[in-house]
Amino acid sequence: MSTSSGGVAHVTTRAALLDVIRGAGQISRVELTRATGLTGATISTVVRRLIDDGLVVETGRAESTGGKPAVLLSLDPDARYAVGIHLDHAGITYVLANLGGAIVGRWRRPGAGADEPSAVVGRIAAELATFVAQVGVDPDRIVGLGVVSPGPLTGAAGMALTPPVMHAWTDFPLADALQRATGLPVMLENDATAAAVGEYWAGSSEASTCFAALYMGTGIGAGVMVHGDLYRGASSNTGEIGHICVDIDGPDCWCGSQGCVEALAGPAAVVAAARAAGFALPDIGIAEDFAAVSRAAMVGQEPAAGIIERSARYVALAAQALANIMDLDRIVLTGPSFAHAGSLYVPAIQAQLDRSFFARTSHAIEVVISTHAAEAAAVGGAALVLQSELAPRASSARALSTAVRTLPAPHALRQPDAARA
Amino acid sequence: MSTSSGGVAHVTTRAALLDVIRGAGQISRVELTRATGLTGATISTVVRRLIDDGLVVETGRAESTGGKPAVLLSLDPDARYAVGIHLDHAGITYVLANLGGAIVGRWRRPGAGADEPSAVVGRIAAELATFVAQVGVDPDRIVGLGVVSPGPLTGAAGMALTPPVMHAWTDFPLADALQRATGLPVMLENDATAAAVGEYWAGSSEASTCFAALYMGTGIGAGVMVHGDLYRGASSNTGEIGHICVDIDGPDCWCGSQGCVEALAGPAAVVAAARAAGFALPDIGIAEDFAAVSRAAMVGQEPAAGIIERSARYVALAAQALANIMDLDRIVLTGPSFAHAGSLYVPAIQAQLDRSFFARTSHAIEVVISTHAAEAAAVGGAALVLQSELAPRASSARALSTAVRTLPAPHALRQPDAARA
Repeated sequence: MSTSSGGVAHVTTRAALLDVIRGAGQISRVELTRATGLTGATISTVVRRLIDDGLVVETGRAESTGGKPAVLLSLDPDARYAVGIHLDHAGITYVLANLGGAIVGRWRRPGAGADEPSAVVGRIAAELATFVAQVGVDPDRIVGLGVVSPGPLTGAAGMALTPPVMHAWTDFPLADALQRATGLPVMLENDATAAAVGEYWAGSSEASTCFAALYMGTGIGAGVMVHGDLYRGASSNTGEIGHICVDIDGPDCWCGSQGCVEALAGPAAVVAAARAAGFALPDIGIAEDFAAVSRAAMVGQEPAAGIIERSARYVALAAQALANIMDLDRIVLTGPSFAHAGSLYVPAIQAQLDRSFFARTSHAIEVVISTHAAEAAAVGGAALVLQSELAPRASSARALSTAVRTLPAPHALRQPDAARA
Repeated sequence: MSTSSGGVAHVTTRAALLDVIRGAGQISRVELTRATGLTGATISTVVRRLIDDGLVVETGRAESTGGKPAVLLSLDPDARYAVGIHLDHAGITYVLANLGGAIVGRWRRPGAGADEPSAVVGRIAAELATFVAQVGVDPDRIVGLGVVSPGPLTGAAGMALTPPVMHAWTDFPLADALQRATGLPVMLENDATAAAVGEYWAGSSEASTCFAALYMGTGIGAGVMVHGDLYRGASSNTGEIGHICVDIDGPDCWCGSQGCVEALAGPAAVVAAARAAGFALPDIGIAEDFAAVSRAAMVGQEPAAGIIERSARYVALAAQALANIMDLDRIVLTGPSFAHAGSLYVPAIQAQLDRSFFARTSHAIEVVISTHAAEAAAVGGAALVLQSELAPRASSARALSTAVRTLPAPHALRQPDAARA
């Protein structure tokens, strides 16, 4: 995590107990003693506080084994909530997740566009209040915001190097500003990294030991999870496959390099190529224009189809590099741009990997499209906040993932009115 | 680890105690109880066995704190040894390391060349016996062989996909054959991955949290360690930067892809380009020919200098991809080919990263040449075997690294006669 105002990391015994209770579904104090190795007195004290705070409830009694039947404890999933906010040029997505791991609200609003960062922060604070009120959740139960944006992120501030459309955000103190505006703790995360957590949470990595979320929003990036742990590298700025060079004499990229995958094949490059080839575009933003080119390509219309095909060939090379460096067994295409165009990219990426994946004699690698590509990053933001509440010891979203799988499937979740706005 | 016949992984309490004793240097039984949380009775029993097996010795008494002074325990570094064997087309390197982490012998012999794998295995068994005898170590104290070769490796066998010069080794049951020929347990490891462990062990990653060994032997690869843990991916076939595409219309590569860094810039490509440009080469093998081109480039002789410069530009793109995907803070150039030519590659790689490293606003990335590039892979092989003996619970070489740093510096180690042969 790039930054966190946390306030939960000191409660490790408490978080450990919460984690065990969540994992068990229902559990007695005696079983907690066995499961944790803590003394009965400690269990008793900490459980009392968890009940006082409303996080844990007594939900019945175990079957008697002779003596007095033990009282069973459960997590109250609605005791706490976390908000995930995906901030991008083209759109801002809000999701609200409960302590049990269920998404109870989602809302998509216009993006940052060319607005001043401070104005956008003010708007986010206002939209957040509206969103939480419409979902009908007590604001006091919200433990924090997981804010997701393009990288790279620096420790205490925000975006340190930004794509041209978000230049105003360079070095803007995003975490601090949002924390002041909302009064809530803020965790910052790279969009592609958060998307990997969101995909993991949603079960997209089922049966995989090392999967990547290949993310395409305005830019291209990736997040990788190995055995349920996020790969973090030196500073959490990992998986930047948009900025690997696939043409030594290629065009300059805003990142300072040249021949980058993003410069050759990202949504902006696709839109520019389409426009240069005479394809009529509304010019209402890269995301919308890219969606228009994708729709035309979907029905085989030229020049759109050829331009997307060329983009897919380059993105496939990025996938090859990622797979051969990280030894992946699954790639999930996610993010707003793949929400529109994923099916146009899968065949080229799978074909390139079938030919070039270096570990193919050891195991298969599968390319799939996310079923919720547009909101995976925001879901990941909320998941990371809940994870720090549930299990601050863990470096991964594993605990949380286990939680969500014991809860209703996403399609069974209630939708707030706001999400339909 | 791709495969291990182990026999040590069941002794976890024993290994945990060995690890604590090694880390402490000297420690009493009472201190062991405190450090491990094990009961005094367990400590007493296991320490007795360790002393009986000769792994631990009683080395004195602590200063009295009133009662009877406690007996101090130490690891006997010469109680056990491991052999690292780096098997490549151009050379076979043997190293012998003791339980304390010191290299007590090294020997370089001719490579596998075009010989039949079974003949090479027979030769290795004979050379191993000679080597151990010349170093003067009791063969019964050798716990296993760490055998390092080009990847990818499959679970139980050996190389599953090989460069053209080692085609005879494809699917050859290397681990089984060597185990039968030597009577010793065999662990297989990818050469670049092992080199990362060897570099970590030798202190090359000092002050780094996420470093890569960028390895060039006959091929090009990399191993990455994050916070002292090897990055393993799905099947330990990671860091294959020789097989990422940097030219979509580039030449075919033996791996099945095209435009690969190795095909454009590896030692074989450098030698072929030099020969095509009329540079006279002895044609005694790729490694020797590459060394000859490097020596000419070192003094600015054309066409060698221009050919190496072009190779360095492509290798720099591989380094950029690796750094941007894994978020590295250090790259160590290692392996036999960088032992000759590392200084010709450092400037191009550092310059490319200064321009293109995506997380450069968060932290620096430094490119350095290994001080023992020729043997890092073999050292890593021995280190991985010792690590499994010392701490089979750990997924990394961290414990071992700590060990070696408490022992004499490498230059203080004795050299066997065999190493001078």
